[in-house]
Amino acid sequence: MDAKFKFAQNLIRQATDYVRKRMTEDLQIEEKTRFDDLVTNIDKDTQDFMVERIQQAYPDDYILGEENDLYHDIRFGHVWVLDPIDGTVNFIAQRQDFAIMIAYYEEGIGKFGLIYDVTGDKLYSGGGHFEVTCNGRPLLPYQVRPLNRQLLGANGSMYANNYLGLADFSKELLGVRVLGSAGISMSRVLEGQFFGYCSSISPWDYAAASIMGKKLGYELLTMAGEPLDYKNRQAVMFIPQAEVARVKKIIHK
Amino acid sequence: MDAKFKFAQNLIRQATDYVRKRMTEDLQIEEKTRFDDLVTNIDKDTQDFMVERIQQAYPDDYILGEENDLYHDIRFGHVWVLDPIDGTVNFIAQRQDFAIMIAYYEEGIGKFGLIYDVTGDKLYSGGGHFEVTCNGRPLLPYQVRPLNRQLLGANGSMYANNYLGLADFSKELLGVRVLGSAGISMSRVLEGQFFGYCSSISPWDYAAASIMGKKLGYELLTMAGEPLDYKNRQAVMFIPQAEVARVKKIIHK
Repeated sequence: MDAKFKFAQNLIRQATDYVRKRMTEDLQIEEKTRFDDLVTNIDKDTQDFMVERIQQAYPDDYILGEENDLYHDIRFGHVWVLDPIDGTVNFIAQRQDFAIMIAYYEEGIGKFGLIYDVTGDKLYSGGGHFEVTCNGRPLLPYQVRPLNRQLLGANGSMYANNYLGLADFSKELLGVRVLGSAGISMSRVLEGQFFGYCSSISPWDYAAASIMGKKLGYELLTMAGEPLDYKNRQAVMFIPQAEVARVKKIIHK
Repeated sequence: MDAKFKFAQNLIRQATDYVRKRMTEDLQIEEKTRFDDLVTNIDKDTQDFMVERIQQAYPDDYILGEENDLYHDIRFGHVWVLDPIDGTVNFIAQRQDFAIMIAYYEEGIGKFGLIYDVTGDKLYSGGGHFEVTCNGRPLLPYQVRPLNRQLLGANGSMYANNYLGLADFSKELLGVRVLGSAGISMSRVLEGQFFGYCSSISPWDYAAASIMGKKLGYELLTMAGEPLDYKNRQAVMFIPQAEVARVKKIIHK
C-alpha cells in the first residue's frame, strides 16, 4: 500500500503540472446536465492523463472517473476514484479555487485520499493507514469549539433555498462560506477552518475527503443522517462525528 | 503623490508582516454590534501600528479607521482610510481569506488604494494616476463577457434573503461565491474573476477597491443605483460601468 500511496502522490503532482501548463489556453466548454454544470476539454484530458498512468502501473485495477463515462462500483475490487477538476465553474470563471482529487478503495474500504488545491498549492493526503497531512504538515483531529465561533461551507443554492433547514442551521454558526469547490471546502473542514460542509455531490467529489476525514474524526452522511450510497449525487453533510447527534436535531427540526 | 504611494506600499507590507507574526497567538475577541460582528486585539493593534507610522510621516493628514473610533469625513483634507483586518470572522475562524486595506483621498478625490490578501500573498495597488497592479502585474480593464459565464461575489445573508432580488439576479449568472471578505471579493472583481460584488459595507471596506476599480471600468453604487455617501454602512454593488444599466433593470424588477 505504501507504494500505491507514493504512486498516487506522484500522479497528482504530475496532473497538477499538466493542468498548470494548460491553464492559459482558451477552453472548450460544454454543458452537461444544465447551464451551470460544465465540463472543459481540460477536465477530460486531465482525467485521460491520470487514467493512462494508472492503467500502465496497475492494469488490473478499476477506475471510477467523473468524466468520459468511466464508471465502476466502489464496492468491488481495487478502485481508483478520480476527479480531474473539482470546481470546474471556478476553473472556467476564475482560474482559481479548483482541485484535483484521487481516492483509492479496496473492496469498498477507503485506503487513502488526495486533494490538490492547484492555485493554493496545497496537497492534502492520507487516511486509512496513513497520517493525514497538508504539504507534509500533520493535520489534527477535530477539537470541540463553540458553534458560534465556527463557519460552515455550503453549496450556494442549497443555502439560498434553505434546503432541509440549512440556512436556519447556519444561524447557529458564525456564517456561511460558498467557495464553489467541494474538495477545497472539505479540505477546510480537515484543517479545522470550517465546522462542516453541506452540498449535493457525487462520489468523486467526496471520496478523497471522506477517507481523510474518517481518520480525523469527521463523518460524511446524507443530510437526513444516513450513510451514503457511493453511487448517485446526494445531499450530504461532512461534519465532526462528535457533533452528529446535535446537528441532526437542529437540521431536521 | 509618488512618495505617498510608495510610503503606502511599504506601510501595508509592514502591517502584513506584523499580522503574520501575531497570527498564531490566542486572540482576544469582542463582539461589536452583534454576535457575528467581531473585533480582535490584533485588528486594533494593527490599526495602531499603521496610524503611528502615518502620523509620524504625515502629521497634518487625517485618518478614518475601522477600529478605535477614528473618524474623519473623507470629503475634507488629506485622508487615509484604514481597514487593519477586513474579514475579521475569517481571520478568527480560518486564519485565511482576510485583507489589510489602505485608501488615500484628497478633498474627497481618491488618489490610490491598496488591498493586501495576507494569506494569498497578493498586493493589489493603484488607481488615480497609478496603474492598477497585482504584485506588479498590470490588471486589465473590464472585458465584456456573457453573464452566464461569470460569477458574482456576495454577502451570504443578503444572498440567502434574496435582498433586493439579489438571488434572482444571481440566476442570470453562473453562480454566487461567498468569501467573507469585501477586500478579497472586490480584488476578484478587479482581476475579472467575479463579474461583480454585492454586500452591505462601510467606507473602509470599499474605499481602496473603488479607487482601483474606477481606473479599470468598475463602478461602486448603492444597490438602488445611487452614489454612496462614504459615511454609513450601505448595501452596495461593485460592477462594470458598462453593465450598470442592465444590472439596474434586473435587480429592481
